[in-house]
Amino acid sequence: MSNRIGNSISVQIFGQSHSKVIGCVIEGLPAGFTPDIERIQKDLDRRRGGKNRYSTARSEADEPYILSGLVDGVTCGAPLCVSFKNKDTKSGDYSELRDKPRPGHADYTAYVRTGGHNDIRGGGEFSGRLTLPLCFAGSLCKQLLEIKGVYIGAHIASVGIVNDVLYDPVNLTRQDLEPEGFPVLDKDVQEVMERYMTEIAEEGDSVGGVIECAAIGMPAGYGSPMFEGVEGEIAKIIFGIPAIKGIEFGAGFGVAQMKGSQNNDPFEYDGRKIVTQTNNAGGILGGITNGMPVIFRCAVKPTPSIAKEQNTVNLQRKTNDTLIIKGRHDPCIVPRAVPVVEAACAIALINLL
Amino acid sequence: MSNRIGNSISVQIFGQSHSKVIGCVIEGLPAGFTPDIERIQKDLDRRRGGKNRYSTARSEADEPYILSGLVDGVTCGAPLCVSFKNKDTKSGDYSELRDKPRPGHADYTAYVRTGGHNDIRGGGEFSGRLTLPLCFAGSLCKQLLEIKGVYIGAHIASVGIVNDVLYDPVNLTRQDLEPEGFPVLDKDVQEVMERYMTEIAEEGDSVGGVIECAAIGMPAGYGSPMFEGVEGEIAKIIFGIPAIKGIEFGAGFGVAQMKGSQNNDPFEYDGRKIVTQTNNAGGILGGITNGMPVIFRCAVKPTPSIAKEQNTVNLQRKTNDTLIIKGRHDPCIVPRAVPVVEAACAIALINLL
Amino acid sequence: MSNRIGNSISVQIFGQSHSKVIGCVIEGLPAGFTPDIERIQKDLDRRRGGKNRYSTARSEADEPYILSGLVDGVTCGAPLCVSFKNKDTKSGDYSELRDKPRPGHADYTAYVRTGGHNDIRGGGEFSGRLTLPLCFAGSLCKQLLEIKGVYIGAHIASVGIVNDVLYDPVNLTRQDLEPEGFPVLDKDVQEVMERYMTEIAEEGDSVGGVIECAAIGMPAGYGSPMFEGVEGEIAKIIFGIPAIKGIEFGAGFGVAQMKGSQNNDPFEYDGRKIVTQTNNAGGILGGITNGMPVIFRCAVKPTPSIAKEQNTVNLQRKTNDTLIIKGRHDPCIVPRAVPVVEAACAIALINLL
Amino acid sequence: MSNRIGNSISVQIFGQSHSKVIGCVIEGLPAGFTPDIERIQKDLDRRRGGKNRYSTARSEADEPYILSGLVDGVTCGAPLCVSFKNKDTKSGDYSELRDKPRPGHADYTAYVRTGGHNDIRGGGEFSGRLTLPLCFAGSLCKQLLEIKGVYIGAHIASVGIVNDVLYDPVNLTRQDLEPEGFPVLDKDVQEVMERYMTEIAEEGDSVGGVIECAAIGMPAGYGSPMFEGVEGEIAKIIFGIPAIKGIEFGAGFGVAQMKGSQNNDPFEYDGRKIVTQTNNAGGILGGITNGMPVIFRCAVKPTPSIAKEQNTVNLQRKTNDTLIIKGRHDPCIVPRAVPVVEAACAIALINLL
Repeated sequence: MSNRIGNSISVQIFGQSHSKVIGCVIEGLPAGFTPDIERIQKDLDRRRGGKNRYSTARSEADEPYILSGLVDGVTCGAPLCVSFKNKDTKSGDYSELRDKPRPGHADYTAYVRTGGHNDIRGGGEFSGRLTLPLCFAGSLCKQLLEIKGVYIGAHIASVGIVNDVLYDPVNLTRQDLEPEGFPVLDKDVQEVMERYMTEIAEEGDSVGGVIECAAIGMPAGYGSPMFEGVEGEIAKIIFGIPAIKGIEFGAGFGVAQMKGSQNNDPFEYDGRKIVTQTNNAGGILGGITNGMPVIFRCAVKPTPSIAKEQNTVNLQRKTNDTLIIKGRHDPCIVPRAVPVVEAACAIALINLL
Repeated sequence: MSNRIGNSISVQIFGQSHSKVIGCVIEGLPAGFTPDIERIQKDLDRRRGGKNRYSTARSEADEPYILSGLVDGVTCGAPLCVSFKNKDTKSGDYSELRDKPRPGHADYTAYVRTGGHNDIRGGGEFSGRLTLPLCFAGSLCKQLLEIKGVYIGAHIASVGIVNDVLYDPVNLTRQDLEPEGFPVLDKDVQEVMERYMTEIAEEGDSVGGVIECAAIGMPAGYGSPMFEGVEGEIAKIIFGIPAIKGIEFGAGFGVAQMKGSQNNDPFEYDGRKIVTQTNNAGGILGGITNGMPVIFRCAVKPTPSIAKEQNTVNLQRKTNDTLIIKGRHDPCIVPRAVPVVEAACAIALINLL
Repeated sequence: MSNRIGNSISVQIFGQSHSKVIGCVIEGLPAGFTPDIERIQKDLDRRRGGKNRYSTARSEADEPYILSGLVDGVTCGAPLCVSFKNKDTKSGDYSELRDKPRPGHADYTAYVRTGGHNDIRGGGEFSGRLTLPLCFAGSLCKQLLEIKGVYIGAHIASVGIVNDVLYDPVNLTRQDLEPEGFPVLDKDVQEVMERYMTEIAEEGDSVGGVIECAAIGMPAGYGSPMFEGVEGEIAKIIFGIPAIKGIEFGAGFGVAQMKGSQNNDPFEYDGRKIVTQTNNAGGILGGITNGMPVIFRCAVKPTPSIAKEQNTVNLQRKTNDTLIIKGRHDPCIVPRAVPVVEAACAIALINLL
Repeated sequence: MSNRIGNSISVQIFGQSHSKVIGCVIEGLPAGFTPDIERIQKDLDRRRGGKNRYSTARSEADEPYILSGLVDGVTCGAPLCVSFKNKDTKSGDYSELRDKPRPGHADYTAYVRTGGHNDIRGGGEFSGRLTLPLCFAGSLCKQLLEIKGVYIGAHIASVGIVNDVLYDPVNLTRQDLEPEGFPVLDKDVQEVMERYMTEIAEEGDSVGGVIECAAIGMPAGYGSPMFEGVEGEIAKIIFGIPAIKGIEFGAGFGVAQMKGSQNNDPFEYDGRKIVTQTNNAGGILGGITNGMPVIFRCAVKPTPSIAKEQNTVNLQRKTNDTLIIKGRHDPCIVPRAVPVVEAACAIALINLL
């Protein structure tokens, strides 16, 4: 089932951009756990739009309504269902799109797959809004991971041509993972990056970027060889986030130009435990964690909805046509996607532990 | 289960580098299908080593023994079990490795995961040799895909600093996918690349690379939103191949620097059907095929087994130590991995159709 | 995941007896399908209590709220989430049960499994109320099956010592499957059965029964050998209904006393197609449908909540104790379970087609 | 996948009655475990035929060849593949059956499902011979369960009209579970039962029966509500054994005639722990173990292969026809199925722990 992920703690997502509500059912949570909903709300707020010129003008409170699974704030072992209202929907904006699929969007592929019955309003089930329940579920999983000493963070590695510094893959602290405010490590980058995104927005265009995510505290020995390796488990869920087109672990595509003598991470005792002197492996050897930080980067494509005129086809008339997209859209979704990538990583890791 | 992949046609792999046999059980094959075993053998031969100075001296016939599932050469609907003998094993070479994990290998992580009971001989179940049954299964799936008009090919995009040209993502033909001999598109690259790998081998070192893979003929409308998108399904199995550290689809990490107006692939009618003018999406929108070639690249790390002395630890004595790896190893596994990547892609795609 | 069933059309159930809402998420429905909600409501009404002296006094409207997955009444391919309000809850009734587990209920096992964090109110997630969303999902699947010519029905085979006649396993019509009113085939049985149940209720006791279910129109060739046989697929979901303790197909436990010459169903051409002269196999051979009616019976235990004093333990004081259960309970759930068994069967069969 | 069962320890079965070998791949075994192969061989011998007048004359050594997963007799964490040779095959016997499906067999349904490509020799993948690798896998799981203090046994509850006594559902000991020799509890029953089966054999007929299976030592709290309840998990795998047509837990179909006051098992402290005074629940409440013996019975149909002439159809000529089955067949498979039922139960339970 494509809207569902996880075998020990599973998340079943439902809803479309303009359905009454969206939400998810989280099954497999341990009973007796008291989630800190306020902290989850903070992650939801990091993901929320409507705050500045480079994100969508759509404004939603994104307040979670927990329908089942909690008794007096404590998990009871039954599936936890959480829902969010869709209030600020302007369905009228989307009427033209039924006939003219937006380039870079799922309009055309959804049309083929559903025989034209897909919910076109706001992108339907392909909308980035569906990452809201994902973010809730992952934020909750982050709390479960913290009980086990595992901490997850992410930051913007780049937006278009503007780069942040990367994580130190060997010495990475909780502080590094939880930057205040705008999610970059080098605070001087923020101003350049925000100005750049604003300019792109003013052009009526959009831009992509890279998000780097890391988990510290993962003990060695989790994950499996072959098809349940840590890389594959994380990749499967990260590619579930709309707009992700690539993922790399540790040195990633950089390994292609490295020699074995450079890429191999030498082992050493650091007194207490075995570590590696470098971390080109991104904390994963043979699909199994080696106790070093798990690190990956993923590529986010530019928001396909842009204000410029684009070439497309008219499915009704079976002719070539042009399209100008109306409505409210993020010119760069990378900042908002940061907590979503953390959430996805958390769901993958909790299912490995 | 980590040695198993696929829900409609599943592949369950078994064996270790030095077990009596290795093999796999393929379940879900349609009854009444006559696999062309000779063509499969050709793919197995492309994967086989022992042929030149930059691949391992271990020599195996890699001849498949089909134990069940075929009656007079025709599938009968029962699971097909195929096995391969492990003959040319020199288990004595590996005795030292029990105590001293090889950097870049799964020795240490397998040790932790199994409490030291892992099969250390030849890398045990983490050996690249396990890609042999994967290659068999995928080569068979390629034949099933061809019946549906889907063709898969791969080539070396780069080895270390030496690059091949890339596929034309829009106009890609069967001929492009099936190059004769050494798997590069630009035949002038072959000599440079082979000399480069030989030099690396002579240094006692190894080198990584990138493999590009494509499928043509995939109809629009296959795959699903979110967690069963085509990217995620392919990524999950590709990361099952040892040594893969990154994957990207279409423009891949390149999207991070692109604007929406550049990255969006405009739709047009080509007379018969809807196509896109560019193919930055790698044939996938919203997790669903759009009818254009499905294209991805994956990063292969340098073989961790190198002849040079390396730093490691001694698990027995709990001290730092050094290690010189003996035995036979590929200084560059990229050429041999090409048919394996095709095989993995085929298994992913047949499960989508 | 234990609250989820089905691989092609999956049902994820959520909620507890006294949570704000209960419901389910149905994924995998074909797009473009217009469910007849009124007909579903009729099945929900058949399942609903509060109508007479032998069912619970708890009264709920059981009106479905569809939160996602429908656009203008038509499925759009996204998961359909339906919820039901829990209004008529009297949580105060259950306070004593935290310490004194009710015999025959899941109170004690849920206590052990959740470390005492289970939702004790109304049986929590073990309540028969959770069959409401199951009934919705299955009723919807019945409509999908009808499109394919498959019809499902069930009736009370027995309540305590009162028996209905059984289905004719060879010649079974749609009319047989859809009796009006009280779900017995022999209308003379109704009065005896209802009076019997009323007497049991007046004793403060409860009673079990058997439900027989059948599907006609299933084409030959569906299902698989071994672990995905039709029997196993149906059994797995039927045992998901609380209170079911046994299931048998065709001649069922009767086969144990039969000889092969009696039990074997001879094949014959009926002009158009191959049929069997008897149907001891219940329409299933080797786990695969043979085109005859699929027939099974399942045993429903007496409602464990009875008004009589019972022996139990006090978990708090770690002593033996006695218990008198208050609250509203069905003395016989068999009549209400009839549409639930149909629903479960429908979910199993739609996943086989 | 229908030849595969289990999520934490999975068993993938392969082979047909007359393929070169049959076997299975067992994944998820803990590393560092030393299976006692001789004890497994004893279970395989209990299952083996060729020993007396009421079982098939086909004689196989049924010696397991372990192809992978063990190093010096110890599990290494890699999948364990075991194979068995098929030596004593007389494929010539089966030629007529391609056209004339045997009543009660899967010949016809397999024909429809595979378009006539099924392996007809010896019943192909529907043969009871496939229970041999199942028996191996389950016998190995029994050893893993014993480490956790869980013991499984089964006996013949009845063959045709001859009944053994049943297990004491409350006080059940290891000794009860491991009867010497012929698997009945009341040794006086053996002679009557064997004579009865011999008579049936002499008639050229066959007969069914019931097997009762129990597990002691299962701690309370395992299993889940709804679709992963203990009943459903056991039922799914038990119905994977050919010829099973019904299963019931605890009082089983007997609950249908019971009142709640009779069926409810009162709790009490037995000093150390909580027990129930009766065990009508068969050790399972709400799908979860309650610490009492897990008990179930399953109905085995008479072997469909009988020597008497039977009515069937001719698929080639599309006419009615008659058939006399040649070859070697068990007139009663119940005795041989006893260790298979134990094995299936063991695989279900190890996956719950």
